[in-house]
Amino acid sequence: MLDIGFDIGGTKIAAVAADEDSGIAGKISCPFPKGRDGRFVAKMLYDMAAELMRGCGESMNGVRSAGIAVPGSISRDGEVVKDAYNLGFRNVPLRRYAQEHFKGIPVNMVNDANAAALAELYKGVFKGRSCAVLVTLGTGVGGGIIMGGKLFNGGRGNGVELGHAVLDFRGERCTCGTLGCAETLISASALIKGALRRVQNGCGGMMAEIIEKDGSINAKEIVGCALLGDEPAKSAFDEYMDALAAFTVSIINVFDPEVIAIGGGISGAGDALLKPLGERVKKMCFFDSPCEITVSEMGNDAGAVGAAMLFRSF
Amino acid sequence: MLDIGFDIGGTKIAAVAADEDSGIAGKISCPFPKGRDGRFVAKMLYDMAAELMRGCGESMNGVRSAGIAVPGSISRDGEVVKDAYNLGFRNVPLRRYAQEHFKGIPVNMVNDANAAALAELYKGVFKGRSCAVLVTLGTGVGGGIIMGGKLFNGGRGNGVELGHAVLDFRGERCTCGTLGCAETLISASALIKGALRRVQNGCGGMMAEIIEKDGSINAKEIVGCALLGDEPAKSAFDEYMDALAAFTVSIINVFDPEVIAIGGGISGAGDALLKPLGERVKKMCFFDSPCEITVSEMGNDAGAVGAAMLFRSF
Repeated sequence: MLDIGFDIGGTKIAAVAADEDSGIAGKISCPFPKGRDGRFVAKMLYDMAAELMRGCGESMNGVRSAGIAVPGSISRDGEVVKDAYNLGFRNVPLRRYAQEHFKGIPVNMVNDANAAALAELYKGVFKGRSCAVLVTLGTGVGGGIIMGGKLFNGGRGNGVELGHAVLDFRGERCTCGTLGCAETLISASALIKGALRRVQNGCGGMMAEIIEKDGSINAKEIVGCALLGDEPAKSAFDEYMDALAAFTVSIINVFDPEVIAIGGGISGAGDALLKPLGERVKKMCFFDSPCEITVSEMGNDAGAVGAAMLFRSF
Repeated sequence: MLDIGFDIGGTKIAAVAADEDSGIAGKISCPFPKGRDGRFVAKMLYDMAAELMRGCGESMNGVRSAGIAVPGSISRDGEVVKDAYNLGFRNVPLRRYAQEHFKGIPVNMVNDANAAALAELYKGVFKGRSCAVLVTLGTGVGGGIIMGGKLFNGGRGNGVELGHAVLDFRGERCTCGTLGCAETLISASALIKGALRRVQNGCGGMMAEIIEKDGSINAKEIVGCALLGDEPAKSAFDEYMDALAAFTVSIINVFDPEVIAIGGGISGAGDALLKPLGERVKKMCFFDSPCEITVSEMGNDAGAVGAAMLFRSF
């Protein structure tokens, strides 16, 4: 029997079929049908599952469960996508729509950051851990928490919003309305913003050249420029790392987890990120020794694999 | 059978005997023997227990367990008081010292903020709750977390240090060395500091009068002055509430608890604290509705009662 996992994103829908060992038996992806409604997407998910199973040489009878990861907030009962801006979904009962197609197959739904944490738990860097925190740094900041070896979806079931822990309570206004949320300081977007500010101030250097050539710059490129000794990039990266270290230390002091994993595009910087982060955290952490800090392992498959694991996680 | 709980503080040691219903069958207290070592204190605990039991008309044969709450950090194995500044204890194996006296009676040790959270769970505002957070605002900021209906002592067993979550990452240096920990902003000491700064700037008003008369002012008096419309007090209290609201919102966004309880002397302000806090949190919280926010119920007995509950919490 296979478990199907879907990761619905603003540009594409990824799907995997996972075997008993959480291995990927097959995968497939489609562009996200922008502007179409939840019923349309639900039908698409079923068609993708059927095609995925055909690719594995099996029928839909071989499906044990289906899980859906969504980039947004989900109602406490797991039925409704309350708000997923990138999908244009608001109060869409997507689980039920999907369930109507997946007859006799249990369908569950989860936030994509939670799904990524589950993927790390079953197949990645959280394997065998009881308490672990995943922090994904992208356009926003997401996170997933493992507690007692299981996904922690908030004490009331509203989920966890690590990106909306306050890090600078007199700071910049966040999209959520509160001042100085972590998201305003440690998202990849915040690093890019800091870099652009320096370039616009006419600092010159490698970042200005990249922007001149490509019209834009991403977080990994900024880290690269900093590593190569470009002064404006080093300054932007240092400022960013101070905030990221303060956030990481807060997580450690509050949860005392066994391991923290950093995900999202910027985690591709690997040791260039982990080394300066580890040095700062060691000095700042309340406890004698900080926990292990690493980068997430599941990469682009994390959301879909985690969604496939959802059935096993109850 | 009774469970004995001790709350060791820098000025006194409180002890209670708790019955099966977590009711207080007896209580007693002694001044803390400043300057004496852990062995001396351990012997004192035993003597206090014997006297407490005599007062209940029973012998030490009626003791099921003993629990010790300590204002400081405790080693992961629960054996050693690593650092309790107010007691002058550093690396004191107090549990073992006490165990040598309490022959055949299991002795456990816990941080005092954790003990207070346990007391709320068994007898106070956390009764029947699965996920709850206690925040104690005093000289420092302590906290205890209930997860899955049990005390959460950190994923690695180092405890939780809510007061060392960062709230202002470019802010004032905390005693722990990190910049802008919650403790520098939301402790009762932080409120008093803000008030003193205003008085020293010659703002006049009621607070200046109190300080003139008593030589000092406490947090509850400052809240009182603010309630009575004293402008400098209102300004100090407003500044403090902005930080406390940001902290409370962070806790809600990260844990989504069923209830948050505020403890420590300032919680005596009751609605004068809860009303402005609730209004701010409602606007700032990521979720549709914030959780219940209340004041702790167990007051001065919290540490000792929680310590007595320790045996039941495993």
